[in-house]
Amino acid sequence: MAGQTVTAELYAEVQHFYARQMQALDSRVFKTYADSFTEDGTFRHTPGTEPARTRAGIEAELVRFHEQYQGDPVQKRHYFNQIVLDANPDGTLKSTVYALVLRTRPGADRPEVWPSCVVHDVLVTGADGILVKSRDIDYDQQI
Amino acid sequence: MAGQTVTAELYAEVQHFYARQMQALDSRVFKTYADSFTEDGTFRHTPGTEPARTRAGIEAELVRFHEQYQGDPVQKRHYFNQIVLDANPDGTLKSTVYALVLRTRPGADRPEVWPSCVVHDVLVTGADGILVKSRDIDYDQQI
Amino acid sequence: MAGQTVTAELYAEVQHFYARQMQALDSRVFKTYADSFTEDGTFRHTPGTEPARTRAGIEAELVRFHEQYQGDPVQKRHYFNQIVLDANPDGTLKSTVYALVLRTRPGADRPEVWPSCVVHDVLVTGADGILVKSRDIDYDQQI
Repeated sequence: MAGQTVTAELYAEVQHFYARQMQALDSRVFKTYADSFTEDGTFRHTPGTEPARTRAGIEAELVRFHEQYQGDPVQKRHYFNQIVLDANPDGTLKSTVYALVLRTRPGADRPEVWPSCVVHDVLVTGADGILVKSRDIDYDQQI
Repeated sequence: MAGQTVTAELYAEVQHFYARQMQALDSRVFKTYADSFTEDGTFRHTPGTEPARTRAGIEAELVRFHEQYQGDPVQKRHYFNQIVLDANPDGTLKSTVYALVLRTRPGADRPEVWPSCVVHDVLVTGADGILVKSRDIDYDQQI
Repeated sequence: MAGQTVTAELYAEVQHFYARQMQALDSRVFKTYADSFTEDGTFRHTPGTEPARTRAGIEAELVRFHEQYQGDPVQKRHYFNQIVLDANPDGTLKSTVYALVLRTRPGADRPEVWPSCVVHDVLVTGADGILVKSRDIDYDQQI
């Protein structure tokens, strides 16, 4: 299949990067999540809206977004899986990832499973490790 | 534990191979899925039935199988995980994988989670990268 | 992000280790599961309880724990994902992992999805490959 030039080493590094990023997000350490983007990174969590821009903007958007849960607490777990990486001509990396969210509410005896998403990232690699240059999320559900 | 001679590099390559294969399947690019098998590959998606044989036969079977969804659309997402690889004496690779399918119907606000499967593959590696020589799927549910 | 000194090679080896360990557990080959711990390993599957200790103790605890399913059979599938590895100063490896369990009962047409967990392992690596020195499990649900 096409696009197999990405090394196994890079593939494992991207998996590790996503795992760390998701654990930070679910622990609501938003600065760590925002710092996993480039300085000029963009993050569009809802199709058709303007993306948050810059690390400071992304962190602020996450704080704003999570205010809805203050009266309705939930523990989310983001699973990023089935990662496909393709090298872009400009040296960045196109990353297409399935994402599944589990959410457990206080007192519930089992998690809810939604939404099912596809994440479209552009990644850059360099001296600072892996960083997200842009993230756009599509949903299988209507949102 | 036994069978740990498979290299970390090959392990990551197999993960990437499966991710690409599943994204092709869920996008219904059946030729890409079929071309991820050897020319004489076999694919048995239902226990107790005859497998589809050859790339052309596998592609035709996928087209036939998906006709049922023409009046009942659904977006599936196949998650292949918990991959265990063991080297076979003949140089092929035994791959045992958990598979979970999420399916979202138009207008639904969350995905259904079924079935839970175990995939039994024989993989070959070579100049063409990784290919599936045979695939048999077991289901935890009655089907 | 911090802690990225763990190599890609080790990351893939740990993924493979967990996959093999989970397949052994779900197949109820408890000796294989217990032998994936160090001789003096500890396994605390329920917060606030005393952990099982030593391979023999862990195997015995698993046998005891699964007696509850003798009259209520279920096929579990443990998915370990989103693995984050950090090197500890003493040379061991801190591993923080999301775990999701699917369980299918005889005659059911789809799996149940619970619980959602976070696994806290200390791993050691050496001539015997990867082994678990200690495992503690947290649950998002009340149990």
